Amino acid sequence: MQALTGLDSSFLYLETPNMPMHVGGLDIYEGSLTFDEFKEFFSKRIHLAPRLRQRLIEVPLSIDHPYWIDDPDFNIDLHLQHMALPKPGDWKSLRKLTSHVFSQPLNRSRPLWEFVFVEGLENIPQVPKGSVAVISKIHHAAIDGASGAEMLGLLFDVTKEPREVPPEKPRELEPIPSDINLLYKSTMNYIKRPFKLPGLLYETAKSTLAAGKISRIQPSDVPRTIMNAPRTILNQAVSAERKWDTALLSLPRIKALKNAVEGATLNDVVMAICTGALRRYLLEKNELPDKPLIAMVPVSTRTKDEKDDMGNQVSAMLVQLPTDEEDPLKQLIRLQANTKRGKQYQGAIGAKQLTEYADFVPFGLGAQAARLYTRMNVSKYHSPLFNVIITNVPGPQIPLYMNGKKMLAHMGMAPIFDGMGLILPIFSYNGVLSISPTSCSNIMPDVSKFSRYLREAANTLEASVLALDKKKEK
Amino acid sequence: MQALTGLDSSFLYLETPNMPMHVGGLDIYEGSLTFDEFKEFFSKRIHLAPRLRQRLIEVPLSIDHPYWIDDPDFNIDLHLQHMALPKPGDWKSLRKLTSHVFSQPLNRSRPLWEFVFVEGLENIPQVPKGSVAVISKIHHAAIDGASGAEMLGLLFDVTKEPREVPPEKPRELEPIPSDINLLYKSTMNYIKRPFKLPGLLYETAKSTLAAGKISRIQPSDVPRTIMNAPRTILNQAVSAERKWDTALLSLPRIKALKNAVEGATLNDVVMAICTGALRRYLLEKNELPDKPLIAMVPVSTRTKDEKDDMGNQVSAMLVQLPTDEEDPLKQLIRLQANTKRGKQYQGAIGAKQLTEYADFVPFGLGAQAARLYTRMNVSKYHSPLFNVIITNVPGPQIPLYMNGKKMLAHMGMAPIFDGMGLILPIFSYNGVLSISPTSCSNIMPDVSKFSRYLREAANTLEASVLALDKKKEK
Repeated sequence: MQALTGLDSSFLYLETPNMPMHVGGLDIYEGSLTFDEFKEFFSKRIHLAPRLRQRLIEVPLSIDHPYWIDDPDFNIDLHLQHMALPKPGDWKSLRKLTSHVFSQPLNRSRPLWEFVFVEGLENIPQVPKGSVAVISKIHHAAIDGASGAEMLGLLFDVTKEPREVPPEKPRELEPIPSDINLLYKSTMNYIKRPFKLPGLLYETAKSTLAAGKISRIQPSDVPRTIMNAPRTILNQAVSAERKWDTALLSLPRIKALKNAVEGATLNDVVMAICTGALRRYLLEKNELPDKPLIAMVPVSTRTKDEKDDMGNQVSAMLVQLPTDEEDPLKQLIRLQANTKRGKQYQGAIGAKQLTEYADFVPFGLGAQAARLYTRMNVSKYHSPLFNVIITNVPGPQIPLYMNGKKMLAHMGMAPIFDGMGLILPIFSYNGVLSISPTSCSNIMPDVSKFSRYLREAANTLEASVLALDKKKEK
Repeated sequence: MQALTGLDSSFLYLETPNMPMHVGGLDIYEGSLTFDEFKEFFSKRIHLAPRLRQRLIEVPLSIDHPYWIDDPDFNIDLHLQHMALPKPGDWKSLRKLTSHVFSQPLNRSRPLWEFVFVEGLENIPQVPKGSVAVISKIHHAAIDGASGAEMLGLLFDVTKEPREVPPEKPRELEPIPSDINLLYKSTMNYIKRPFKLPGLLYETAKSTLAAGKISRIQPSDVPRTIMNAPRTILNQAVSAERKWDTALLSLPRIKALKNAVEGATLNDVVMAICTGALRRYLLEKNELPDKPLIAMVPVSTRTKDEKDDMGNQVSAMLVQLPTDEEDPLKQLIRLQANTKRGKQYQGAIGAKQLTEYADFVPFGLGAQAARLYTRMNVSKYHSPLFNVIITNVPGPQIPLYMNGKKMLAHMGMAPIFDGMGLILPIFSYNGVLSISPTSCSNIMPDVSKFSRYLREAANTLEASVLALDKKKEK
């Protein structure tokens, strides 16, 4: 039995019918993997990630965060679904199916994950016929981006030949604790931190009620006047239907672009591409604000020692996206300056401190504040703290294999919430970078247009860089 | 805004993670209906069944049953899923997919139904290639068997050419009531029936706590000593994974069989087939009890006036299945006598009275009693009241069309619960009778074997009847 951390359980409290708090992915595998092979392979390794066979138990009266217990009724068949893509088996069918799966909340009475095995990818460019896709969904309370990368490592191999995984040792399941035991354990937890609590609680309550829970991970000594984000159509209440798509870009091409501006990182180039697409999308709808958009960029703060246990240890960086600038090269130059400054602020606060802070929101306060935020439509009345979330998780740059079949691409999905209707999860894997806009039907019904703008923004930036190089040569 | 009846809301209270309380169906359509056609057709008629765009709101403090309200956020795309059957597109793939869909509980924050449109039925005998299937799921609180038959009537046509359905008049959505309004309305409801309540409440509490909620619809003046059911492997706690299959039988063949025994009805013949299959299945596992099994057979008690509003108005008949008898013809003779007696008992109590009784279980007592029943594993310690549920809903005996495509078959699915791990929903439609055993992975993992036994029991009974006819001729 293991208590959830404050940040992990906040993802449970934040969850509403319109805001399922799972992260997801779409992986494509080359060659004809069958569902039975997939199930057998996965069953043999599932014990490497204990969280996948654990479920939540809630503490009576909500005086403590929930606990994870080994699920005595775990049944893998409830978590694996097998289907095929409807005709013509093209990217549009896959994108729609994936969006539908992402729209359905996970069942809280079971371990918080689900895989959908999809056959029939018959008409997707660069994907050989007979390839299969796996849509995955894991609750944010059970995993974060970095843990996700670790899971890739657990379940996949770096060679075509699968490595030997030692079978599970016979294990004895802990009995499910009674309500009384849970109350006792929670009271003990509470007693251990009585002196630290009151001040933190007061501060947390104040800031949570004022601006929604998310403000707790905002670097608060960044001057508000600078960092205040403009209102945009992206920052409204979200609907239940997810709209998801992806833009795949060549990583070597992106890497080449960063050399155009001294000191620019790969991340700066990616942000410039996002900036270009956001500017074009909003401009076209006559909804581009004068002030530049602000992106929130989560940063993993887990230390090496903490890598074994999954869980969220994240702080945040706020970055100004120069959407008020038309020239892609000038966008990149400004971004390079902005992110450098952003990192300094974040470094000054101290990542560990932010994490500890998030660990102290007992009494279901998180849930109530988040609900209040949603219910009162607070997001309608104050300026957003940021306009878009961009998560950039670097993955392995070598091919991964699952049961001998090469993974061709990995694309991510992440939760959106009221006031924050667009998130851009970015993964790089084996020379391919995927940017996967995740939004909803009332905020970005035309998400495919946006993903096209992402691809085209990369082309435009590349053209500017080439033009610059030619100029230099002269 | 409309309050749920006592019986309807009891299906909400009874629901647990292992016991989703929806009814379902699998329909197969001839010819190449596309998903877009299906969606357009369905969207144009959905206003004929108002419940499909309503969702629940719960009353604070649980002092009254929940209410239905028009869902201001209704979005049909969240309720329609589009997929294809994995290869080879045979009955086994369809049965597995259907079982998986039936295993997933409905999302209570949305209107309580879901359709899955399935292409790729390439290898199912008697189903033309290119045909499609629709798996449907509707919460039992929103619909019962008879309402289901009405829904068929709303959404389907008796001619290939779809009839004109008048478009919906512009409607004004009621505002979602605040907690205060709900409390006021509930208190008023409560005040209107103060004198009737206490006695009924006491009686209900007593019987509910003693034997689980289901006892309320047992005809209590049937002597317990006669009607007590034996313990069987079917009467255990259920698991979350549904196992579902179907046996399709020719209705004219079944009808011919009833003439073999004077006074026998079609229902008696169907019960004889179920008896034969149950006997063989349990005998083979060395689990056949000496005493005959008892079936609970729900009977719709709605009057003609009540047909417009959906909702459950059901009473029950208990029927002894002669599983202790080997000879199929003698089984039928005994069943004819048993069901006649069963109907007399039920008639004596009065259907309307039973229904009213179920309307008085306030204060969340239903939920608590049902949970208590499950948690204490009461079902392990006392004899079951009955062993199996058999629901027989007669459908139209003419072909139905959906957007010009003929429905080839309709198969049902119904909820099981702890202590009652097998239900046999039976539908007849256009000359075909479907018996669709619905169970779970720990009670009947080999449900396909049982459905084969159903088909073979029909053959055996037919052979006996033919042998009898020959004897008579001599």
